[in-house]
Amino acid sequence: MKRELIQSRRRKIRRQLREHNVDGLILTQSVDVRYVTAFSGHDSWALVTARAVHLLTDSRYTEQAAKECVDTTLVERQGNIAVAAGKLVRKLRSLQNVAIGRTITLAAFETLRKNIDVPLKKLDGVLETVRSIKDTEELAAIKTAAGISAQALERTKPSFRPGVSEIELAGLLELEIRRLGGRNGFETIVAFGPNGSRPHHQPSQRKLRKTDTILIDFGASYNGYTSDITRCFVVGRPTAAYRRAYDVVERAQAAAISTARAGAELAEVDAAPRSVIRESGLPVYGHGSGHGIGLEVHEIPFLKADTQDKLQAGQIITIEPGVYLPGKFGVRLEDDILITETGCQILTRGCPHAAMPA
Amino acid sequence: MKRELIQSRRRKIRRQLREHNVDGLILTQSVDVRYVTAFSGHDSWALVTARAVHLLTDSRYTEQAAKECVDTTLVERQGNIAVAAGKLVRKLRSLQNVAIGRTITLAAFETLRKNIDVPLKKLDGVLETVRSIKDTEELAAIKTAAGISAQALERTKPSFRPGVSEIELAGLLELEIRRLGGRNGFETIVAFGPNGSRPHHQPSQRKLRKTDTILIDFGASYNGYTSDITRCFVVGRPTAAYRRAYDVVERAQAAAISTARAGAELAEVDAAPRSVIRESGLPVYGHGSGHGIGLEVHEIPFLKADTQDKLQAGQIITIEPGVYLPGKFGVRLEDDILITETGCQILTRGCPHAAMPA
Repeated sequence: MKRELIQSRRRKIRRQLREHNVDGLILTQSVDVRYVTAFSGHDSWALVTARAVHLLTDSRYTEQAAKECVDTTLVERQGNIAVAAGKLVRKLRSLQNVAIGRTITLAAFETLRKNIDVPLKKLDGVLETVRSIKDTEELAAIKTAAGISAQALERTKPSFRPGVSEIELAGLLELEIRRLGGRNGFETIVAFGPNGSRPHHQPSQRKLRKTDTILIDFGASYNGYTSDITRCFVVGRPTAAYRRAYDVVERAQAAAISTARAGAELAEVDAAPRSVIRESGLPVYGHGSGHGIGLEVHEIPFLKADTQDKLQAGQIITIEPGVYLPGKFGVRLEDDILITETGCQILTRGCPHAAMPA
Repeated sequence: MKRELIQSRRRKIRRQLREHNVDGLILTQSVDVRYVTAFSGHDSWALVTARAVHLLTDSRYTEQAAKECVDTTLVERQGNIAVAAGKLVRKLRSLQNVAIGRTITLAAFETLRKNIDVPLKKLDGVLETVRSIKDTEELAAIKTAAGISAQALERTKPSFRPGVSEIELAGLLELEIRRLGGRNGFETIVAFGPNGSRPHHQPSQRKLRKTDTILIDFGASYNGYTSDITRCFVVGRPTAAYRRAYDVVERAQAAAISTARAGAELAEVDAAPRSVIRESGLPVYGHGSGHGIGLEVHEIPFLKADTQDKLQAGQIITIEPGVYLPGKFGVRLEDDILITETGCQILTRGCPHAAMPA
């Protein structure tokens, strides 16, 4: 992890703290802690002040923290982490107040409030907004994750044979991700035939038939950053209805991608693929058209109708329209794109959409 | 899911609500929601009252909820779940107050408080304590999970060959778990040689050598219930130091198991294996000696020194002492046991400890 990048992240956070007249910010979410320290463990909090970043961790992690952290003061705690955070704030003396995001649990918040001797402000979304614009190292990690995903899927294709179960195919794909040095970014969805029409289907013992459809929603993570890709395949000859749906989803996705650029309204990018599907007469999906990815598989920005927000250069989002026909099949295509000033860059080109059999 | 079991769980919860003069309890954690409704999805809350159990879910899950839930009133929400919970409480009218556990996020708590028109009490640990005593269906699920784990490990053993990486071995084991109808209960630890001395090691590209040690901490989950097993193996001839450590850990584990019965103090069971290791002159581990398992991989009771609590019949816990020699190796043996009135039953017998090569 490059020092300059960590320092640049901290500068952005500190700017927000100054704007809100806050002297320190306590981070309780592992992904936020990782973002400002490079520490990849759990059960640890960070305190960001104008001068320093402190990591509150315990004996299980001190060795790892010493190895991973960049320009961070390590504090080994014993006992309750919120009590230790209060103690640290008292020890620093220089802080007139401290802020906390409301993703903290109520229990930890109450303990923290009792153990802190300066005003405790509530301040949401600081890390969320800073994290949404990716730096070079984050972009590189997501590109690597996407590359691993593409290769792993390619290596799994020989197993697209009648008789394989959804669960087994998910396991084989995850094994290839592991072999390529990645991890699962989230729970793999493998759905055959009608199972594809449920966006949240969990892989089952359902076996692949001689004529069947396959929907795979998966993503490798690399260095903590996840990719998120959905691909659909056909075994045997596709029906006319399937061909048509696939074609409509591809066009819907292209419509969204063509509107994505810095300054575009999230609502507008969300609406573009829906229009294409609506005009085709097929049912419009109920989920969002895409979301940010990074240290979390779902982070801001979320493509949806009820927002005034706009895309910003440096954000990395998914574009994932689908057509779901209950009892028949589902088609979803999901790619990851980097938003630029003039348009976007597709990061998942290495994982081609399936060519439909003639 | 048997109706009688769900009803029995609810009776225990309602008894606690009456004791605390509470008319309703809102559950926000997925595992708690699953326990009282049998619904296995996410992003859903439950409200338990004297008369009924309500599930607050959204359109993504309504089909699944209708299929899975037992004796539960489904409420499809749109928008914020805490707002919807407030609305539900208002609609029911009959509730004089409602309780919430402090595992809720501060953000959700504040929204809930604003949207509820009766006093909102804080009440911790109700589900935690009820869930800690397993019923027949839960015991059966953990036994199945342990059986899948044992079989999967057995099928993975042919891959204990020089050149395989930690990551690949983890992937192969997880694939076998999938093939047997389970899922990963938690992130698999595979640690070769000196990596075994870090209890939280993440599988790396480190390859197995001709003479080496293997530590695997893993567990299948089945129907939401997880097993948690650690086994250690040797490739080639073990050193005298390794043989000795392995022997001490086995005796330490046996010492803990021999003290485990309903009424035994957690601190006493925690101390038993430490004494054996201390007497041997080897370093005593820093982590707990074991913990409850169930819908979560770590739940109460926790074996530790600073508690007055006692084991109860029906609890299922791990016993997992270890010896860690930094730069050399680690040995940990972890089995899952059911606490009974007279002692305990080892649920992981089907997964034998390794026989040391002569």
